[in-house]
Amino acid sequence: MPLIHEKTEGVFVISATPFHPDGAIDWESLDRLTDSYFEDGADGVTILGMMGEAPKMTQSEAAGIAARVIARAGNRPVVVGVSAPGLAALGELSRTVMDLGAAGVMVAPPGSLNTDPKIHGYYAQVCELLGPDIPVVLQDFPLSTKVQISDEVLARIIADMPSIKMLKHEDWPGLSKISKIRAAEAAGQRRISILCGNAGLFLPEEVARGADGAMTGFGYPKMMVEVTRLVKAGEIGRAQDIFDAYLPLIRYESQPGLGLSIRKHVLARRGVIASPAVRKPGGPLDAAAMAEVDRLIARQEKRLEELG
Amino acid sequence: MPLIHEKTEGVFVISATPFHPDGAIDWESLDRLTDSYFEDGADGVTILGMMGEAPKMTQSEAAGIAARVIARAGNRPVVVGVSAPGLAALGELSRTVMDLGAAGVMVAPPGSLNTDPKIHGYYAQVCELLGPDIPVVLQDFPLSTKVQISDEVLARIIADMPSIKMLKHEDWPGLSKISKIRAAEAAGQRRISILCGNAGLFLPEEVARGADGAMTGFGYPKMMVEVTRLVKAGEIGRAQDIFDAYLPLIRYESQPGLGLSIRKHVLARRGVIASPAVRKPGGPLDAAAMAEVDRLIARQEKRLEELG
Amino acid sequence: MPLIHEKTEGVFVISATPFHPDGAIDWESLDRLTDSYFEDGADGVTILGMMGEAPKMTQSEAAGIAARVIARAGNRPVVVGVSAPGLAALGELSRTVMDLGAAGVMVAPPGSLNTDPKIHGYYAQVCELLGPDIPVVLQDFPLSTKVQISDEVLARIIADMPSIKMLKHEDWPGLSKISKIRAAEAAGQRRISILCGNAGLFLPEEVARGADGAMTGFGYPKMMVEVTRLVKAGEIGRAQDIFDAYLPLIRYESQPGLGLSIRKHVLARRGVIASPAVRKPGGPLDAAAMAEVDRLIARQEKRLEELG
Amino acid sequence: MPLIHEKTEGVFVISATPFHPDGAIDWESLDRLTDSYFEDGADGVTILGMMGEAPKMTQSEAAGIAARVIARAGNRPVVVGVSAPGLAALGELSRTVMDLGAAGVMVAPPGSLNTDPKIHGYYAQVCELLGPDIPVVLQDFPLSTKVQISDEVLARIIADMPSIKMLKHEDWPGLSKISKIRAAEAAGQRRISILCGNAGLFLPEEVARGADGAMTGFGYPKMMVEVTRLVKAGEIGRAQDIFDAYLPLIRYESQPGLGLSIRKHVLARRGVIASPAVRKPGGPLDAAAMAEVDRLIARQEKRLEELG
Repeated sequence: MPLIHEKTEGVFVISATPFHPDGAIDWESLDRLTDSYFEDGADGVTILGMMGEAPKMTQSEAAGIAARVIARAGNRPVVVGVSAPGLAALGELSRTVMDLGAAGVMVAPPGSLNTDPKIHGYYAQVCELLGPDIPVVLQDFPLSTKVQISDEVLARIIADMPSIKMLKHEDWPGLSKISKIRAAEAAGQRRISILCGNAGLFLPEEVARGADGAMTGFGYPKMMVEVTRLVKAGEIGRAQDIFDAYLPLIRYESQPGLGLSIRKHVLARRGVIASPAVRKPGGPLDAAAMAEVDRLIARQEKRLEELG
Repeated sequence: MPLIHEKTEGVFVISATPFHPDGAIDWESLDRLTDSYFEDGADGVTILGMMGEAPKMTQSEAAGIAARVIARAGNRPVVVGVSAPGLAALGELSRTVMDLGAAGVMVAPPGSLNTDPKIHGYYAQVCELLGPDIPVVLQDFPLSTKVQISDEVLARIIADMPSIKMLKHEDWPGLSKISKIRAAEAAGQRRISILCGNAGLFLPEEVARGADGAMTGFGYPKMMVEVTRLVKAGEIGRAQDIFDAYLPLIRYESQPGLGLSIRKHVLARRGVIASPAVRKPGGPLDAAAMAEVDRLIARQEKRLEELG
Repeated sequence: MPLIHEKTEGVFVISATPFHPDGAIDWESLDRLTDSYFEDGADGVTILGMMGEAPKMTQSEAAGIAARVIARAGNRPVVVGVSAPGLAALGELSRTVMDLGAAGVMVAPPGSLNTDPKIHGYYAQVCELLGPDIPVVLQDFPLSTKVQISDEVLARIIADMPSIKMLKHEDWPGLSKISKIRAAEAAGQRRISILCGNAGLFLPEEVARGADGAMTGFGYPKMMVEVTRLVKAGEIGRAQDIFDAYLPLIRYESQPGLGLSIRKHVLARRGVIASPAVRKPGGPLDAAAMAEVDRLIARQEKRLEELG
Repeated sequence: MPLIHEKTEGVFVISATPFHPDGAIDWESLDRLTDSYFEDGADGVTILGMMGEAPKMTQSEAAGIAARVIARAGNRPVVVGVSAPGLAALGELSRTVMDLGAAGVMVAPPGSLNTDPKIHGYYAQVCELLGPDIPVVLQDFPLSTKVQISDEVLARIIADMPSIKMLKHEDWPGLSKISKIRAAEAAGQRRISILCGNAGLFLPEEVARGADGAMTGFGYPKMMVEVTRLVKAGEIGRAQDIFDAYLPLIRYESQPGLGLSIRKHVLARRGVIASPAVRKPGGPLDAAAMAEVDRLIARQEKRLEELG
């Protein structure tokens, strides 16, 4: 089974978890969704992240989803979110999913880490617990976690914990963080892979500054695949043209809390999943929002046609 | 099996979870600890709260602890903390422990509840999920949860959700909250039981204002039993004398984050549990703190003797 | 002097405060900036908001800026941000600027308001302090203030405090908040003006849902003027075409903390202000960001030309 | 005029600001209060701190209070709180009060400092702004400021900013922070004065661990003076006896938000200030709380008599 490593690149789609309208997991839609991501050109998927409604799962549901998606993905890498309030649950789920063939685990910092030494100490404990053989993705998403990871402490974490192979970068503003990491690497710091989140809202700039790709869940993963490929190929103008065509919808999807319902509406509208249902306390998109999304998609299709 | 109800009174000790030095659960100490609480006069125990290191347990460990303590407690009530990031896990654990014979479940609000309607909505969802037969304790502990529950929204929750039978009161400052609830009940609001936390730091005033007792984890539960009994019996002076004798240690134990290590040191020193070990990211008490605690205990014993 | 009222509409630009490179106020640039906003079609300006670096001013500087801009604006309305840690300073500044001819004052909630009753109580105190004759803009910007104002408490504030004439709307996500206010008005609630912030990121949808315009500080105020006018005229397609042309830059400017430096860079590049200097602890835009902004502006101009 | 320095010791009382019932400053009570602090044995006073209701003052009121207290104190040191949302106001007030003869200024970190480098950077800017001749007290009070200052960043601040002469220590739990600073000094770190806050709740332990005294506002400053003196003289038992006699009231006063009203009630009851009035949004103590305070004071007097 493939593992992520410090040079992993491309697009890992943050997978949604499809539910039936009654809240039960829709396994058929989950298969179709997994297939769809790879058909759209994804290099991997990341499951049980925040957008995968991980905290709303029981432990056995989480393991079941991991088993299903890893099997379906075949030899393509699947990263699994294992963030948990305590280390025991985090360790247990990590070992379970690695045994199932996961490519690595993703860990966001708990909200109680309010100093740089506590942040460093937490990841030291996680890495010690998981041992040297489980690759770890550090999720740096302060808007949601409330934990601000400074450039300085991030550099210390990279230096001290070799099993952290990848940064899921979604600090905001965060462009200079990418530049600083790449500059530090040019000066001798160990390389890590950087895949960017934040709904893709800064993807052209991020890749141009040295990110290796995207790890987020926009409803049209094809956009992320093309923009990442084109910027890397030096075709920044064309990349930005395509990005701009999707941007009105990217912006709309980036609304915190609401983003998941929008994304599921888009995926259901595209026929990839059967129902846009989200588990409580989430709810469905209201009619006004649906109309706005549909209008944006119609414009997006027209604009993409113009671009050829 | 006894269930908690809107008139439950007395002292429910927030139970620690004893570990071996290597972090494994120490089942023998857990039995001894459970016995010890009842020998000290407790009316019930509450397990898997924050002080029980609940977030550091795996799901199966949590169920195992609940089974053990409920069995050991015999026909005495055991409340189980079931707070979880999502409703699915909360519901699953609640049903498991109620089947084992728990007296009720305790639910703290997740930190994302930043408006009164969201707080109300969350408890509405919890109560709908659990159904009318599972008694719920609402844990109101803003210092830890970051969720401030106003008098107004608390009154609406009490009015709308009959399965909430008890308030674990640890708002700070919070004395007027007790007075307002009892005044509202005098004016017709449904009664609920109020047991107070906050390490017992305001216990005489709380009971004098109408609280039904304590639900917290001070290392000498006997203090809570006596103070509660004496205030209810109108002997406020004697109650305060005893309280004051313990107060230097209560104050010391109330240090957030550190309190658990102090409490376990006290329990181990008293011979109730074998080891003061706490799970990571917690750590042992350092030598200076141990010396301070030991000095306070020596003074406490002397003062209690003086009081007779 | 004109006062804002419950039907005020159009675009109030959140004004920057220009500084010389040494941090002193650049009065000439301030005049030019004020003129420029009105030349771009603004209906009013709002000074001493967060983007005006208000907290970095001394009290006398704040009064000086208000005097200068109000004089320069002539008979056009100037709203003044008066948020302060305490009511005494807030009241003093409010009276000063109203005497100078301000059109109203803007008040953001202090971060300590962590329950709905406290939020309501705070605005009640502010309105009582200011009296019935000073029109108040309620700034609802949770990302920055950390205070989440629910639809319910907002409705109570509107009902109870007639001097609140306008909502500076920048809750995020916040589109449904606009729809709910307009629906409540259709059902009899007092009307208030709604001008939207958030860097204009959702302006077409906001106006379509009933907002009266914009109150934010994007570097090209013309965009806000045109989009607002076109949506109100029913030309949503054309409005969105123009909006989309600016969107890559709007998105870039919306980076919290960094937005002010970007905006000042744009204003300086446009020749409106002499220097992009921001006061400490802010700093200048780095070279990489400047290049990104310049590239976006070049594309923006080309796209606007294509649109005609 | 005396300045604070790195060996300043003793008790600096955090002064309340007395108001008339209508909210106007009560200058006569302010004089009496200042005198009373020194009569009780204080070595200095600290004005315009949080407990001095500083944020509720206008800038001119703040300067007026500073002038009055500094004049009244004669050659005894007066520290002035100058925390402000921005550096310009902080600098202006600092220069004003130093010209008036203040002994130093106290600066708490603004709530936006969410990483160690930001905390360090903020104090670097403050010290650069104030220059080498104004002694600075760093107020470390996370419960109120929401800024957690780690041992590591505090050590860097002490090393890099020689004008920081004193730590107002009120981290909680914070005893080990004192021990670590003193240990670092034994290993060569520059010495700073440590005066402790937190309503005095841990004063015996703090001084025993190396603190130089107290800087807080308990209603009976004599307690702080005696406990500090006795612990330093090695009479820890006698110190703790006296401390314990006051502890029930200290505990009651330490309720956040409510503490100020309690303290003013005590001061008014003692006849030191004319009215317990606090400025809005604060309010008076309710009848139940007053009765509780009065009961505690009666017991305190009795216990002190027993102790002789």
